[in-house]
Amino acid sequence: MSERLHDRTRLRPPAPASIGDRVEDVGSPALLVDLDAFDHNLAQMQGLADAGGVALRPHAKAHKSVAVAQRQIAAGAVGICCQKLSEAYPFAAFGIADIHISNEFVGADKLAMAVELARHVNLSICVDDVRQVAAMASAAEAGGVRITVLPEVDVGHGRCGVNSTEALSRLADAIGEAPSLRFGGLQAYHGGAQHLPVWVQRRQAAQRAAEAVDGYVRHLDARGVSCPVITGGGTGTAEFDCQSGVYTEVQPGTYLFLDGHYGASEWLGQFRPRHSLFLSATVMSTARPGVVVCDVGLKSVAVDSGLPRLWSRDRSGWLRYVAANDEHGVLEVLNGDSQALLGSKLLLVPGHCDPTANLHAQFVCLREGRVVGLWEVDARGLSR
Amino acid sequence: MSERLHDRTRLRPPAPASIGDRVEDVGSPALLVDLDAFDHNLAQMQGLADAGGVALRPHAKAHKSVAVAQRQIAAGAVGICCQKLSEAYPFAAFGIADIHISNEFVGADKLAMAVELARHVNLSICVDDVRQVAAMASAAEAGGVRITVLPEVDVGHGRCGVNSTEALSRLADAIGEAPSLRFGGLQAYHGGAQHLPVWVQRRQAAQRAAEAVDGYVRHLDARGVSCPVITGGGTGTAEFDCQSGVYTEVQPGTYLFLDGHYGASEWLGQFRPRHSLFLSATVMSTARPGVVVCDVGLKSVAVDSGLPRLWSRDRSGWLRYVAANDEHGVLEVLNGDSQALLGSKLLLVPGHCDPTANLHAQFVCLREGRVVGLWEVDARGLSR
Repeated sequence: MSERLHDRTRLRPPAPASIGDRVEDVGSPALLVDLDAFDHNLAQMQGLADAGGVALRPHAKAHKSVAVAQRQIAAGAVGICCQKLSEAYPFAAFGIADIHISNEFVGADKLAMAVELARHVNLSICVDDVRQVAAMASAAEAGGVRITVLPEVDVGHGRCGVNSTEALSRLADAIGEAPSLRFGGLQAYHGGAQHLPVWVQRRQAAQRAAEAVDGYVRHLDARGVSCPVITGGGTGTAEFDCQSGVYTEVQPGTYLFLDGHYGASEWLGQFRPRHSLFLSATVMSTARPGVVVCDVGLKSVAVDSGLPRLWSRDRSGWLRYVAANDEHGVLEVLNGDSQALLGSKLLLVPGHCDPTANLHAQFVCLREGRVVGLWEVDARGLSR
Repeated sequence: MSERLHDRTRLRPPAPASIGDRVEDVGSPALLVDLDAFDHNLAQMQGLADAGGVALRPHAKAHKSVAVAQRQIAAGAVGICCQKLSEAYPFAAFGIADIHISNEFVGADKLAMAVELARHVNLSICVDDVRQVAAMASAAEAGGVRITVLPEVDVGHGRCGVNSTEALSRLADAIGEAPSLRFGGLQAYHGGAQHLPVWVQRRQAAQRAAEAVDGYVRHLDARGVSCPVITGGGTGTAEFDCQSGVYTEVQPGTYLFLDGHYGASEWLGQFRPRHSLFLSATVMSTARPGVVVCDVGLKSVAVDSGLPRLWSRDRSGWLRYVAANDEHGVLEVLNGDSQALLGSKLLLVPGHCDPTANLHAQFVCLREGRVVGLWEVDARGLSR
């Protein structure tokens, strides 16, 4: 069923940009990274972790790029998080030595991936059910590997993770009794807290999460089980988590890029991220009065957390992205001559960076308005 | 900037399935195609086109797969549509000889792609502005190719396309005067009509669109310009367009798959599509009472046209997909023991097939519950 005609043409679409191109000449749609802003965000988050005496383990689900992970580790990160096992493969293949899968999984195909990864990297995984522990213990034993396992505790997000000290104790016991597993500590992520737009509310939610984690840690301590690692947090709460005295490790991802959703949040503390991720767009139709159509639709920008918004400051007052079709973005022209916009290059800020990066093959990296690099999105589409 | 460590490991994530696997053993998330339903849809749409004396030019944006396009052409299609120029490359490379870009474009990078494609395939493109015509004429002349150009007329969708006979005449004249261009006829697509759920309303909208096209055709006829091709339509209106006496060619895409959005429409005519596209999912957390979490989130299923719904008929009454996070799908358990579901394999119907296929590397093809093929999604992510 996979027969196909021979490719005699060697036809391949050209890359969106070449080194030295001006930003205006980058093809569209493409993912653009402003490296000055990226470096600012990278350094500031590492500085917060260092100041708090906390390890930074950035979440690679936000970028899915080995080149980005290498820069995070060069700046001081202890390793990376992945959300899926298949996602970890390109990072493992290119030498990222320490990978935490911050998510549960079930099934023979997944267990086989975990065993294979554990042969190449220092792998840790999450569980919230003793059946997951038993399955991983058997697979690791059969595969001749030892895997670090962290129970996930629900600290307010209400999705995965155990909700009681009894359930946590059962997990810790099961991990402790399995020779092929190693108890790694706790995974504690409060997704809802990340996205509270008001800074003081975010701080309160992070404090409550930290208190909840602390309760679980004390419970295990009292049973003679110490937690080498207490890991969690995201971009929204990382600053508070670093200062909590509870977390030993934080897992932010979006901090590098600051997407439109996080960009609408208040940032009143020490972490002051800048927008570094953009989409290039070209106005390709001006046939309707009052409206123009660009070539960025929902196949090149994720719209789950809001539509992209216009970055170019000179245009943002009179042009507004109002609808995303598959390959079309409709922009309302609030004033001015819409026909004059045909062929205009626009920069858009994506609403949600993680699923947007997942739609592209490369990041086009810019400094001072020129292309200085192309980074592969190595783990694009790896969701198993 | 693109330096990287050497890949010493050759680590690659395994394919989601192997030939001969049972459907229950396919990894998750993966895109599954029920070939019996697929063949039914393929044959029925071709039969409608044949009966109407109309050419079928399926839209490859729905599947982005050379293997699928080859099957469409083997069944009688005259070629394919693509929505973007870069998307056409893998089809051109693997021998699909006739490609219509059903969309406008502007910019030097795009013009260069069109010229390169026109060296390998019979390429047609769309315009709705004389500046697009002038730019394409110059690029085609410089490149030594001749390109077929179809003005797009707006027949009710209100996005791209000209809105007046005057604007259409200017386009036809400009195309006619350019030696490097060939007037190909009209592109007339009413996107909004496709998605009207009530069959008679869809039929009425299709009739109005056909009347609008007919007006433009007569106008050109009166000026001595005949339209070799009048192309448009989609899955929702294809049956009416085939019988319209106006369209010479139809462009449906989703007809192969019938996603959740189209599945909720009435189908009272001769075209009775079946669901052929599914997502495999695995329940990976049952820690919360009343809710289970699966591994299909918005990085593996597009949610712009609604959340995926559960297919497995025995479970659909008591399990409902209620929220998509990046890599998690939250399912409400309406009755029954949620903990017993850990590790359960589910089949989901995606709300919108086009952007969902764009998230995956392969289609896993099934017959009688067994994997019989893997088809590449060759044009995944090609949105330029």
